[in-house]
Amino acid sequence: MAAQKPSLARGTRDFGPVQMSRRNYIFSNIRQVFEKFGFQPLETPAIENLSTLTGKYGEEGDQLLFKILNSGDFMKGASDSNLANRDSKALVSEISEKGLRYDLTVPFARYVVMNQHEITYPFKRYQIQPVWRADRPQRGRYREFYQCDADVVGTDSLLCEAEIVLMIAEVFSRLSLADYSIKLNNRKVLTGMSEVIGAPGMEGPLCVAIDKLDKIGEEKVFAEMLERGFSDNSVERFKPFLGISGTNEAILAGLEKALSASETGTAGVRELREVLEKVAAFGADVPQLAIDPTLARGLSYYTGCIFEVKPTSVQMGSISGGGRYDNLTGVFGLPGVSGVGISFGIDRIYDVLDELKLFPEESMQGTRVLIANFDEASAVKALTLLKKFRDAGIASELYPEAAKLKKQFTYAENKKIPFLLMAGESEFQSGSFGLKDINSGVQEALTIDQIIAQLG
Amino acid sequence: MAAQKPSLARGTRDFGPVQMSRRNYIFSNIRQVFEKFGFQPLETPAIENLSTLTGKYGEEGDQLLFKILNSGDFMKGASDSNLANRDSKALVSEISEKGLRYDLTVPFARYVVMNQHEITYPFKRYQIQPVWRADRPQRGRYREFYQCDADVVGTDSLLCEAEIVLMIAEVFSRLSLADYSIKLNNRKVLTGMSEVIGAPGMEGPLCVAIDKLDKIGEEKVFAEMLERGFSDNSVERFKPFLGISGTNEAILAGLEKALSASETGTAGVRELREVLEKVAAFGADVPQLAIDPTLARGLSYYTGCIFEVKPTSVQMGSISGGGRYDNLTGVFGLPGVSGVGISFGIDRIYDVLDELKLFPEESMQGTRVLIANFDEASAVKALTLLKKFRDAGIASELYPEAAKLKKQFTYAENKKIPFLLMAGESEFQSGSFGLKDINSGVQEALTIDQIIAQLG
Repeated sequence: MAAQKPSLARGTRDFGPVQMSRRNYIFSNIRQVFEKFGFQPLETPAIENLSTLTGKYGEEGDQLLFKILNSGDFMKGASDSNLANRDSKALVSEISEKGLRYDLTVPFARYVVMNQHEITYPFKRYQIQPVWRADRPQRGRYREFYQCDADVVGTDSLLCEAEIVLMIAEVFSRLSLADYSIKLNNRKVLTGMSEVIGAPGMEGPLCVAIDKLDKIGEEKVFAEMLERGFSDNSVERFKPFLGISGTNEAILAGLEKALSASETGTAGVRELREVLEKVAAFGADVPQLAIDPTLARGLSYYTGCIFEVKPTSVQMGSISGGGRYDNLTGVFGLPGVSGVGISFGIDRIYDVLDELKLFPEESMQGTRVLIANFDEASAVKALTLLKKFRDAGIASELYPEAAKLKKQFTYAENKKIPFLLMAGESEFQSGSFGLKDINSGVQEALTIDQIIAQLG
Repeated sequence: MAAQKPSLARGTRDFGPVQMSRRNYIFSNIRQVFEKFGFQPLETPAIENLSTLTGKYGEEGDQLLFKILNSGDFMKGASDSNLANRDSKALVSEISEKGLRYDLTVPFARYVVMNQHEITYPFKRYQIQPVWRADRPQRGRYREFYQCDADVVGTDSLLCEAEIVLMIAEVFSRLSLADYSIKLNNRKVLTGMSEVIGAPGMEGPLCVAIDKLDKIGEEKVFAEMLERGFSDNSVERFKPFLGISGTNEAILAGLEKALSASETGTAGVRELREVLEKVAAFGADVPQLAIDPTLARGLSYYTGCIFEVKPTSVQMGSISGGGRYDNLTGVFGLPGVSGVGISFGIDRIYDVLDELKLFPEESMQGTRVLIANFDEASAVKALTLLKKFRDAGIASELYPEAAKLKKQFTYAENKKIPFLLMAGESEFQSGSFGLKDINSGVQEALTIDQIIAQLG
């Protein structure tokens, strides 16, 4: 076969050692927080039946599903008429029955339905896996990317919402990110709004308009509301909601008053208050938590609290989000499964930490010491040192060949190995070894036990 | 949309909490060993261009590639004649340009070629990711499964082979598996054999025949050799090789003598001896390491040492294997990249540990203590306990609702949470809390500080 210049598929990425150790730094912190809060790991296959995936993400989502061609003679399933018409859309179901996971929620719902009798409820699961979308690739948007979700299903307790706030706070505290906000709202508040402004049932279009507030400003939101069928009167009655501001308590008081005529709206305010109270009862200080009555994220799915996390000192969309839903599995024939979940956007978190230079040097820390290879004879002796280091749990390497010291030094430097150990014939004779700090260039003469004590 | 009963795609699996914690136990031990030996993580995308994958795994492999249907109006690329003939094979390349990763080696080769000028050699990378094959699913064979590979490229040093032996030994020692063998051979020994039995260049068919020795026995191997074109004389001259046995030293001595007429064979024996010497020089005791001149695993790819690991007290194929190759990237136009690699078969290792009951209870260890929820008022107070536990790094939960104690107990039991903490009104008043050991049923009265000391 002729040699070819290989390339990555569009919208996909390799993660080399540096990126991997940084990504693992983020993942392992999130994973540790999830586990400390009692969430258990789940993994589902990348490949799902298209019958599981199709119709769950809207028509646009269906277009973005990666479909897998049936194996073998796939054409035998194609109908004459669809072939004659070259009808791609109709042919898909005849030549493809599997697709790639589009998110982690639908596979989770499938898992819950298939294992409904074995699962212990409340079921707290987390899942960190890649998903695939046949989107047009662009800066920051990939066709293959990781999602990182935690959900509790099978309880309506608002303790879960409070725990999610605490998990968010602990994740970003561990990642040393302080400049962010956790916006909190409740779908019932939005429903209440539409009721009290005289547009009951119109929370859908209301939210679509409100969602753009940050981007287009108040006046254009009002214009959009009119376009979307709200009356002048409704828009006028809506305007005061945008004036509700101040502390969380002030906002809650304002909402309580403004929504007093709506039972649903009042319940939403009560839930928001309870979440804040529970967070406070933990004794946890989460100054980033802010009620935002205009937060309308992914409304069609959520039925209770809604969360959104954004960095405040970097221009960036949301880095985490989630909320409560009351019908995870209805589409698979199992009604009444309610829950609440949170999702961390790993790629954006990576970019934020990178921009703010928040990755610790240690996240790169692999090998701690490289033993220089001077000649065949000392290299053989050096193997006993290598064993001592590793027995002490110290990640260590012997350069595999007696190359020039400069080359070995560069190897350590590129791989961010902090120490180079000089172990030639004379060192073995004296028992005193030169340990060179790669960054400072300073070299100390030490015994092996001293070196182990220093590196261990 | 009508409710449907969902199912898994054939040959794929979900991994629930118990399996995940056991799999993570295996993965994290392997990962720790890789990193201790200086290997760095790499991840490549699941989706590769078909041009990268096709032609790398033989004709059968090409058939087993999962191909992804082009997005949008994929039929516009199909030619009239192929459509008219319903020629699935010819149509594939017209309607599909991407596929799923079939192994980790080809993507690694692609990565090396694409990043050849940025990589620091010797490049030691490990990669733990799923791969996909459109194989007929059967017991123990899946369409989606993890591979777990480590490779060093860019050096011919046999130190790497010795390190691979040590890594294998450390991985299985950590997993408490002692009953296994590491078979070691060298492609050059096999080449030498074919030379000295008067069938130079026929190491390919020789290996195909030898490979079946375990399964079909000596006589049938000889018969197969005759079928594959070896002369009676060659078969006779081959027979003594099967008599070479005993200690590793005895085998090496026997091989040295038998292969003395072949330069290549002699070099192979020398390499085997050097690997054993290096392992010994480490001061590591690896009694499982056994030279096996009939080991012929994956010959077409390997050019030097070959490894294979099999459990000895369980009926099971190889659980790890690898070897040295000298042309990783030739197919992508970059010749001369040699290296040596090892792969761990995670699914089989899982089954072996399961059968031998070698999974530690702790591999299941998530939440350490569940705080019972007696009523709303004490639950609020319990939040402060929860914070104390978590601040001390103890994974802990408060049952989210004031359910019957029996139900909460069962939750702890099913989730293998070892302790249930009684924290009702009277406990908060007295400062003495009942800590129930779920396994023994014994309950102790302790202060929170005592409990933290016990669980921490």
